[in-house]
Amino acid sequence: MHFDCNFTPYLSLKINPDLIGHERNLNIVPEVLSQAQEVMIMEKKALPPKSEFSEWYHELIQRAEIMDVRYPVKGLYVWFPFGFRIRKEVYGILREIMDREHDEVYFPALIPETELGKEGEHIKGFENEVYWVTHGGTTPLDVKLALRPTSETAMYPMFKLWIRSHADLPLKVYQIVNTFRYETKHTRPLIRLREITSFKEAHTVHATFEEAEEQVKKAMSYYKEFYDRLAIPCLICRRPEWDKFPGAVYTMAFDTIMPDGKTLQIGTVHNLGDNFARTFNIEYEMPNGEHSFAYQTCYGISERCVAALISVHGDDLGLILPFEVSPVQVVVIPVLYKGKEEAVLKAARELGEELKRRGYRVVVDESDERPGAKYYTWELKGAAIRVEIGPREVDEGTAVVSFRDEKKKFSVKRDEIPEKVEEWAKEMRERLYARAVEAMKERVKYCNSLEEVEEWIKKGVALVHLCDSEECGAKLDEIASVLGEVFELPFEVSAEKKGKCVVCGREGRLNAVARTY
Amino acid sequence: MHFDCNFTPYLSLKINPDLIGHERNLNIVPEVLSQAQEVMIMEKKALPPKSEFSEWYHELIQRAEIMDVRYPVKGLYVWFPFGFRIRKEVYGILREIMDREHDEVYFPALIPETELGKEGEHIKGFENEVYWVTHGGTTPLDVKLALRPTSETAMYPMFKLWIRSHADLPLKVYQIVNTFRYETKHTRPLIRLREITSFKEAHTVHATFEEAEEQVKKAMSYYKEFYDRLAIPCLICRRPEWDKFPGAVYTMAFDTIMPDGKTLQIGTVHNLGDNFARTFNIEYEMPNGEHSFAYQTCYGISERCVAALISVHGDDLGLILPFEVSPVQVVVIPVLYKGKEEAVLKAARELGEELKRRGYRVVVDESDERPGAKYYTWELKGAAIRVEIGPREVDEGTAVVSFRDEKKKFSVKRDEIPEKVEEWAKEMRERLYARAVEAMKERVKYCNSLEEVEEWIKKGVALVHLCDSEECGAKLDEIASVLGEVFELPFEVSAEKKGKCVVCGREGRLNAVARTY
Repeated sequence: MHFDCNFTPYLSLKINPDLIGHERNLNIVPEVLSQAQEVMIMEKKALPPKSEFSEWYHELIQRAEIMDVRYPVKGLYVWFPFGFRIRKEVYGILREIMDREHDEVYFPALIPETELGKEGEHIKGFENEVYWVTHGGTTPLDVKLALRPTSETAMYPMFKLWIRSHADLPLKVYQIVNTFRYETKHTRPLIRLREITSFKEAHTVHATFEEAEEQVKKAMSYYKEFYDRLAIPCLICRRPEWDKFPGAVYTMAFDTIMPDGKTLQIGTVHNLGDNFARTFNIEYEMPNGEHSFAYQTCYGISERCVAALISVHGDDLGLILPFEVSPVQVVVIPVLYKGKEEAVLKAARELGEELKRRGYRVVVDESDERPGAKYYTWELKGAAIRVEIGPREVDEGTAVVSFRDEKKKFSVKRDEIPEKVEEWAKEMRERLYARAVEAMKERVKYCNSLEEVEEWIKKGVALVHLCDSEECGAKLDEIASVLGEVFELPFEVSAEKKGKCVVCGREGRLNAVARTY
Repeated sequence: MHFDCNFTPYLSLKINPDLIGHERNLNIVPEVLSQAQEVMIMEKKALPPKSEFSEWYHELIQRAEIMDVRYPVKGLYVWFPFGFRIRKEVYGILREIMDREHDEVYFPALIPETELGKEGEHIKGFENEVYWVTHGGTTPLDVKLALRPTSETAMYPMFKLWIRSHADLPLKVYQIVNTFRYETKHTRPLIRLREITSFKEAHTVHATFEEAEEQVKKAMSYYKEFYDRLAIPCLICRRPEWDKFPGAVYTMAFDTIMPDGKTLQIGTVHNLGDNFARTFNIEYEMPNGEHSFAYQTCYGISERCVAALISVHGDDLGLILPFEVSPVQVVVIPVLYKGKEEAVLKAARELGEELKRRGYRVVVDESDERPGAKYYTWELKGAAIRVEIGPREVDEGTAVVSFRDEKKKFSVKRDEIPEKVEEWAKEMRERLYARAVEAMKERVKYCNSLEEVEEWIKKGVALVHLCDSEECGAKLDEIASVLGEVFELPFEVSAEKKGKCVVCGREGRLNAVARTY
């Protein structure tokens, strides 16, 4: 089985007894692959339902060949070729957005202990989860090296050298790199890892606090655009003081709500003020000849964006991916009948070629599988548009089209398909977004009391009013995580910006509370 | 100063006193930038001549903003935005070639000691240069983790799980990742680093030794194509037994000759036989139901390809880059005279827009610098094609064109330029390649005696005949590194395939010997 678009289909994984517990006794060999798949389809053993989110996610990540979880170190995973293609498309969007006003750079992965330790709060925030390199060969290192948990302390000593004058500002760079955290909590592919393989971190330097503020807004609009294109609705909050980025003035965070009601932080934007500039001596000469510390921001998105993509849109059959990021945007399935094979294959190939010429990612699935097995595979892998062509369609000059996110099939003139793809893609993204917003809406509720919060957070995000006192925050945080003051929701809520603190009754602002990943 | 194509021009670096020793007393501020540059041009302090290769390389890497060497850990460097753009174009070619038959993947950067140590020869080859992660936070790890020096031992335990049957073969994957070596020798940006930021490593698995052999040939042809496009001539050798990749059956290596006559290894292709398959138990079921170990190859290219690119083509003025990989393929310089500014700017912008529409990377340099300072900058940065437009050219509908690798300027009808760029680019690559081959030819000589070898290797590569005995190899290796049996040179040499061993006089094969990086 070999697809046009150069996939190595690791289909044997799907029936690899080590991989999938259910089939352990089937003793299936790859020669009887389609039967094996039929068995899985028939017995509905293929994938746990999405309502069992944790199991569904774990199985889907493997079955759809996103990541292999069997690497022999806890919290480290392997990107399968198929998963890597999703990553490539998703990060392609992110790069496109960043490239508009940031320069891409690369800073070292190893940070000397002396630099990492300079910013007091920063190091306190990370010291328990930093991996330390202590030896080169059998030689102990003079200065221990940290595997970057994030790159402020790698970059800012260099920014000090790069920045002399106001003419050097603003400075805006980003990099997409692997970062490391010694996670002691339960690890999960794409969500909580010890090697974050795809951390996009942007760092900017400005002349004034106001310009840094402006950049925070821009960064937020970039992230909104990014998640819009992925059709992922976000809840944007200003993190509480005790949960902001270590060393920041404040942190704006993007969360989405997972199918189990827990939130997943999928992006953060930090205004660093001049905190790091003071630590790392990033000064510039102003037009009047005086010197000032610079003001900084940083903002990041990790492969959690892929976790959100999978979790928010997928269903019991597998992945659902917006057209723009699906590795297989269109799958053309020739439905063969004896004596008509040639004509059907010809029509399927011609359509496939035409779509490829227009730059779409297309697979014409000419494998020997039965149509049912093919549907199974491409539903699992989230092919956005499916086009079936059988003898009748050949005769009529039509094809049967269906979308991954809808049950209905419809007939279309074959030569109209290439023109329609873009519109279908757009509509599909809109449907996915609308559906995701609806799902999120059902998971968000304003709560009047701590008891109500305690009950509701089993299901989703509780909105409450919270005052500024540390005690009230701490009390609420015992029940669930305080995501912070609500800045934006993707739908209207019937709750005032201000109201009585859910803990003490004094005036407070609208905050979100949830169980978090 | 802001360029259309979104560079943040870190021009202050050029006159940063910390960076450039010569200007330490000039006390130049960015406001007087062009004067500062004029001073540098006038006094020719800008760049050491290429004949002083080591100094030239070191200065150019900084001045052309490829890498910042001031990161506070030996052997670790920062990719500047401009350098990163070169990297991006170069690795774009490599990816395009790899994508033809390999799937891109990502394996973890951390390898447990237990896996790294499994292949006896392999670990022996790396144990002195592996960085060890021993602690997470303050907690000692149960199993030490190696920062990957290369990924065989990360990948092959997984390949064991991925491969069951002959139907799973061949398997061909690649990744572009950071790898780490605890280098105790003198480190140099792009050449000898402790973090290799851009290691492209491909790994393939096959049913038979013959298929692995076939893959070795394919890999070599890919690498030849890659270096052809970069106009870098290569000497291809089969490394001697004592210098092959640890664990391989044999190693084919690509070297180029640097301006100082030392060779730089810029690519290797290894036939691993079934050595690793036996260690990691990578078995497959053959069509007849019996089991066999698999056969493997791996092949890699690091950012040394960028070092070679810079070193082979550059000149006393700075970078010379083949059109295909130059971040600025065309620079349009409006030459302004009082009263004619508008018309000149309009013509320059129009041409720039038209070239961008065709997908070229173009800068219309509208900065306030004098033309001389602009030439200086874009020569330093290796803009491939320079187009100057002044009032006369506006009147005549022409422009003055020059290529970075040639002194001559010529006049062209302005509206013919967009059509001609492709041809110019092709011709430039051919000129660069021819010039590089000529330079390499002058550095390669057949030597009849050890004395001659000893003398010649000060200048370049000595070709000798060498027998298979370990003693003779060792003796020659004392004088300089034996690169191995010559497989291919980019020009004819008057030396037989076989001849008398330069050490003992018995029959030997043609080998190359050189001082190496």
